[in-house]
Amino acid sequence: MGVSQRRVSKAVRIAKVTVGGTAPVVVQSMTKTDTRDIKATVRQIKELEECGCEIIRAAVPDKEAAEALAAIKRGISIPLVADIHFDYRLALAALEAEVDGLRLNPGNIGNAERVTAVVRAAKKRGVPIRIGVNAGSLPKKADPQATVPQRMVSAALEQVRLLESLDFDLIKISLKAFDVPTTIEAYRNIAAKVPYPLHLGITEAGTPRAGAIRSAVGLGILLSEGIGDTIRVSLTGHPREEVVAAYDILKSLNLREHGPTLVSCPTCGRVEVDLVGLAYAVEERLSKMTRPIKVAVMGCVVNGPGEARDADVGIACGKGRGVIFRKGEIVRTVEEKDFLEALMAEVERV
Amino acid sequence: MGVSQRRVSKAVRIAKVTVGGTAPVVVQSMTKTDTRDIKATVRQIKELEECGCEIIRAAVPDKEAAEALAAIKRGISIPLVADIHFDYRLALAALEAEVDGLRLNPGNIGNAERVTAVVRAAKKRGVPIRIGVNAGSLPKKADPQATVPQRMVSAALEQVRLLESLDFDLIKISLKAFDVPTTIEAYRNIAAKVPYPLHLGITEAGTPRAGAIRSAVGLGILLSEGIGDTIRVSLTGHPREEVVAAYDILKSLNLREHGPTLVSCPTCGRVEVDLVGLAYAVEERLSKMTRPIKVAVMGCVVNGPGEARDADVGIACGKGRGVIFRKGEIVRTVEEKDFLEALMAEVERV
Repeated sequence: MGVSQRRVSKAVRIAKVTVGGTAPVVVQSMTKTDTRDIKATVRQIKELEECGCEIIRAAVPDKEAAEALAAIKRGISIPLVADIHFDYRLALAALEAEVDGLRLNPGNIGNAERVTAVVRAAKKRGVPIRIGVNAGSLPKKADPQATVPQRMVSAALEQVRLLESLDFDLIKISLKAFDVPTTIEAYRNIAAKVPYPLHLGITEAGTPRAGAIRSAVGLGILLSEGIGDTIRVSLTGHPREEVVAAYDILKSLNLREHGPTLVSCPTCGRVEVDLVGLAYAVEERLSKMTRPIKVAVMGCVVNGPGEARDADVGIACGKGRGVIFRKGEIVRTVEEKDFLEALMAEVERV
Repeated sequence: MGVSQRRVSKAVRIAKVTVGGTAPVVVQSMTKTDTRDIKATVRQIKELEECGCEIIRAAVPDKEAAEALAAIKRGISIPLVADIHFDYRLALAALEAEVDGLRLNPGNIGNAERVTAVVRAAKKRGVPIRIGVNAGSLPKKADPQATVPQRMVSAALEQVRLLESLDFDLIKISLKAFDVPTTIEAYRNIAAKVPYPLHLGITEAGTPRAGAIRSAVGLGILLSEGIGDTIRVSLTGHPREEVVAAYDILKSLNLREHGPTLVSCPTCGRVEVDLVGLAYAVEERLSKMTRPIKVAVMGCVVNGPGEARDADVGIACGKGRGVIFRKGEIVRTVEEKDFLEALMAEVERV
């Protein structure tokens, strides 16, 4: 039905969450607080847990941040991943602080000896490592003919081989770029070469408006091909928006259920009420609910119930009056002033 | 490079705009004003022309609306399509008003004689017809075993054969559903069966936030397979948002250039300035520009210029100071208070 069967990947456990194998695609995000500010970071992670974030990552810019991870971990319920750039000693310190996962950037983490030290320490604790390749910070060009996707895949494979040579297989891989076709080509390529679960993302995608669209195109294409075991939507904004967008992408391909889904017509010259205002109000009310229910807001009494017959509950609005329907069957007529409350009451009833 | 070669479709001209063939994917929208209100409708269309809308459609709920089309057409510069439901006589009246295109819904337009009358009139004027199938308003089930995508394709093919039997080939086809996998399957199926250009859309996708994501996933997947000659993003909101989202989808697959593109990092615990505020301010300023320029807003002086070296211009912000760069090369250091103005000045200079 439009979506390919999922690629079979190795299941990797990160604390209590499984990524890959037959596990559903996992939603993750990254904190935007100063990691050294334990209170603010824990508060942000608790907020993200509430909206469905399943793994959280925090930047570790220095030793103080690495040490803060232990206290942060005690305050939260989802697995905590330490994001390491440049200094492998920070990875060792994060492992000391008992983080649940590491992300290393092979473009800037340094030589094989340093990576080896980190891998040995991670292995001892059973902590998985994500090899997080970024198109913008690739290791120096070995082959002058190589394209960006090829270089991304090579950088990842080099690290994979190093980890495997150390008898370490708790591996996840990401290959992020801003350019969507580049990203797609890189992931398709690595998906065919290794068994490890893939973390999908489009890097520096932008603000919640344009960035969510860019991420939806890139991640949507890969997920529809069965590629991808965990996703992070990178947006310049509150991480809550990343989690909401991630679920919207997964829901649109029927890969996850998560809270209500709003079906709403775009309105046209036939509409005789403030449908946009109503749709926004309904979206706002639904955002506080967690049940997976499909709710329709339609601008046409004649077409509305039929066109939205997949919806569990809906309203079709005419001038002055509208109808509430369930699975396409009209259950009641309501006055315009009662549109919002009548619909929400019916939603509660389902 | 991640995106397949475009499906070869027949080129169909709608006034001065070509849809299909080797033409770029065309962006269209629909008015949300009362079509009978000529002034408001023309004003909205002029606004959409300014943000890049290339074809506009208007609902024709009654005879007065059909007659208004002539005056609307005189006030605008892009092709005008009449959207017809139920009453084939409104299609005839719209043709009298010299519209540039028709959209008929085979699910509710009535019997073959009525469609025939419309087709004959359209043929005389060289006006193309879009067969606009909607999953929610399909003709009665002929085959009880048929899936929704199969029924959508059957409904379209039946109309295609009728039009072809009348020696009419100025045909475009759309097969819209809310469910993305259903939509994808329907379009893939019809793309292999007929040579006509395809109009892509996800119907009743929702508000600009969730609806844009749903549309980006569905349209992005099809476009990446080379399917689709014109797109409309249906959103419950101002049609301007539909046009902006459509271009963001096309830009993310490098299928169209349109105005500036903002590359901005998601921020993390390493960031020491209000990067979100800066990114939003830059996005706002860029939204008024039409040149296709790539601008980066990065939160890290060390990684920023390199990670965003594809950007024509960018800023990488540290605490108190930042650097302005061009294609990854640092050109200047700036104080925090000057971040926005210094970046925009550099943008102007390119």
